[in-house]
Amino acid sequence: MNGIDANIGDVWKEPSGEATDVVLSSRVRLARNLAGFNFLSRATRDDRRQITRIVQSRLVQSGLIDSLVWVDLDKSESLDRLVMVERRLISKQHAKGDEPRAVILSEPDERLSIMVNEEDHLRIQMMRGGMALEDAYDEIDAIDDKIESVIEYAFCPRFGYLTACPTNVGAGIRVSAMLHLPALKLIGEIDKVRRAAKSMNLAVRGFYGEGSEAIGEIYQISNQTTLGKTERDILASFSTGIMPKIIEYERHARRRLMENRREIVEDRVNRALGTLRYARLLNADEAIRLLSQVRLGVVLGMIEDLDLSTVAELMLISQPAHLQKVIGTELNQAQRRAARAALMRDRVASH
Amino acid sequence: MNGIDANIGDVWKEPSGEATDVVLSSRVRLARNLAGFNFLSRATRDDRRQITRIVQSRLVQSGLIDSLVWVDLDKSESLDRLVMVERRLISKQHAKGDEPRAVILSEPDERLSIMVNEEDHLRIQMMRGGMALEDAYDEIDAIDDKIESVIEYAFCPRFGYLTACPTNVGAGIRVSAMLHLPALKLIGEIDKVRRAAKSMNLAVRGFYGEGSEAIGEIYQISNQTTLGKTERDILASFSTGIMPKIIEYERHARRRLMENRREIVEDRVNRALGTLRYARLLNADEAIRLLSQVRLGVVLGMIEDLDLSTVAELMLISQPAHLQKVIGTELNQAQRRAARAALMRDRVASH
Repeated sequence: MNGIDANIGDVWKEPSGEATDVVLSSRVRLARNLAGFNFLSRATRDDRRQITRIVQSRLVQSGLIDSLVWVDLDKSESLDRLVMVERRLISKQHAKGDEPRAVILSEPDERLSIMVNEEDHLRIQMMRGGMALEDAYDEIDAIDDKIESVIEYAFCPRFGYLTACPTNVGAGIRVSAMLHLPALKLIGEIDKVRRAAKSMNLAVRGFYGEGSEAIGEIYQISNQTTLGKTERDILASFSTGIMPKIIEYERHARRRLMENRREIVEDRVNRALGTLRYARLLNADEAIRLLSQVRLGVVLGMIEDLDLSTVAELMLISQPAHLQKVIGTELNQAQRRAARAALMRDRVASH
Repeated sequence: MNGIDANIGDVWKEPSGEATDVVLSSRVRLARNLAGFNFLSRATRDDRRQITRIVQSRLVQSGLIDSLVWVDLDKSESLDRLVMVERRLISKQHAKGDEPRAVILSEPDERLSIMVNEEDHLRIQMMRGGMALEDAYDEIDAIDDKIESVIEYAFCPRFGYLTACPTNVGAGIRVSAMLHLPALKLIGEIDKVRRAAKSMNLAVRGFYGEGSEAIGEIYQISNQTTLGKTERDILASFSTGIMPKIIEYERHARRRLMENRREIVEDRVNRALGTLRYARLLNADEAIRLLSQVRLGVVLGMIEDLDLSTVAELMLISQPAHLQKVIGTELNQAQRRAARAALMRDRVASH
């Protein structure tokens, strides 16, 4: 890819999975390492370069998997890397540094991304709009098999797949979902969810992933350990055990709000819409917070001239790197605030 | 007046004086007492009744002054009295209690109001839109002379007019102006103005008068003492000495804002406009704060589809009693918040 563009992948544009009223996106990620190479913590620059060469030739150049694009991150523009971080195609860590590393993307949908030389040699990720973990798993499982047909993974019969971080050893799978929980926040029950999730050994993170605060009541929930369980077990307990409970809990909170505090919700939703349509300066966090309110308004039928797909796209293009891509020029922080407000005014305008 | 209606007097509707960019309204008030009666602190109910009878017959029934209306406050509806308080035709104190008391209003302009049996037997008040203290004084002076031709005032050659409160003894005059000082507030210099005003023995009050906080950067500034000075001296030092300085200070602050922080002002102004156009619940204080920002926007040419007269009217009808008059029914606080937001949405709607 010669510079990633501002066109948003399918995951963002068309949330087509289940439960899109609550679930923004689902993700399945596999951690895999090549047999015969040190883990990256001990790998030399030359090891890394060899790994990228093997992966590029056997997965991409061979045509093993359709429509893949190879992006050398150590040669790409900083802004392009940030765009990929915002789109969750690569991690923040993977965007940094000057070591030989890459990402493989499926184009144009960008559902599949394979980080090469991140924490593990390969981090294979499948993303979907809405709740679609089973589908995502089926797809990533097929891809994993294809890769294993041409690359030997580091695997130990006793433990399973060997990974750099012990929490990934075993099935090496992480499943996660990005949830929008504004009603639980508003009725003050979000901490119950956090505690319940932690007691079930789930990680609860904010909008920007690891270590980040929840902004706009968006929470990323994922499994923590993979040792001693099969992929299907992990997937099932998350996808059909835990997720439906949280989704129903949020929906119940929304129904309660609509019965008891409808005016207050309408006020918040409409104020957010008004601010997006009138502000002249907006920082990224406020934009997400406002769009979060608007998203709730769309789901509750309070806003009719916007849809979830537009809101998802706006959440993404309100982020600094996307904003600059959309505007087509580099902007400092003050310029971004003005440009972001102008973009929102234009895109959220009443029709 | 058989129930004051929701039609706003000229003072509010057409700010026609000078410096309307900064000055909302000007007021001159005379404190007068009838000779031969105790001050009200020592007056019996019968004294009060006699005073109202004398005043009513000699000023209103006699036709001495044109277009006057007599309102018995002890017989009027509580909501009507609150409307008059919000319109600054009577004081909060005068609205309360069940003693015989009244107010005389000039109709339909409501520039003149004469409170009967407030703190003094008569409190004669002339109000004007914008900066118009000289005109207001000329008019009230002529009325004062007329009244004195039919009613003997308590007067002592050594001190002047005798009044219930020592700060009013002498000329018995209070001049005041309601100022809109958002730029001084924004650049953090409002406290300088407060200190300067206090050092010149001026009282600085908020939107709702004595003891109230400044809401929406609206300040009422008035002279404090009247003893040993002529009416003209007091008027001149206030109207041509102090006021032009404060007005120029605010205008200077606005110019500085437009040069250095134009984007920030535009953001604040437009957010306020957006909130007025979108909120579903609004309390009175927030409405005033938002309208204050909008007023600044109108003055600075940032908002073109509203004018100062509309903003002034909205400030008034956002108040609880006016709101209920406009809606035409009694409302509790929660209902008022919803009704106020609906009214603002309607009246501030983009055309």
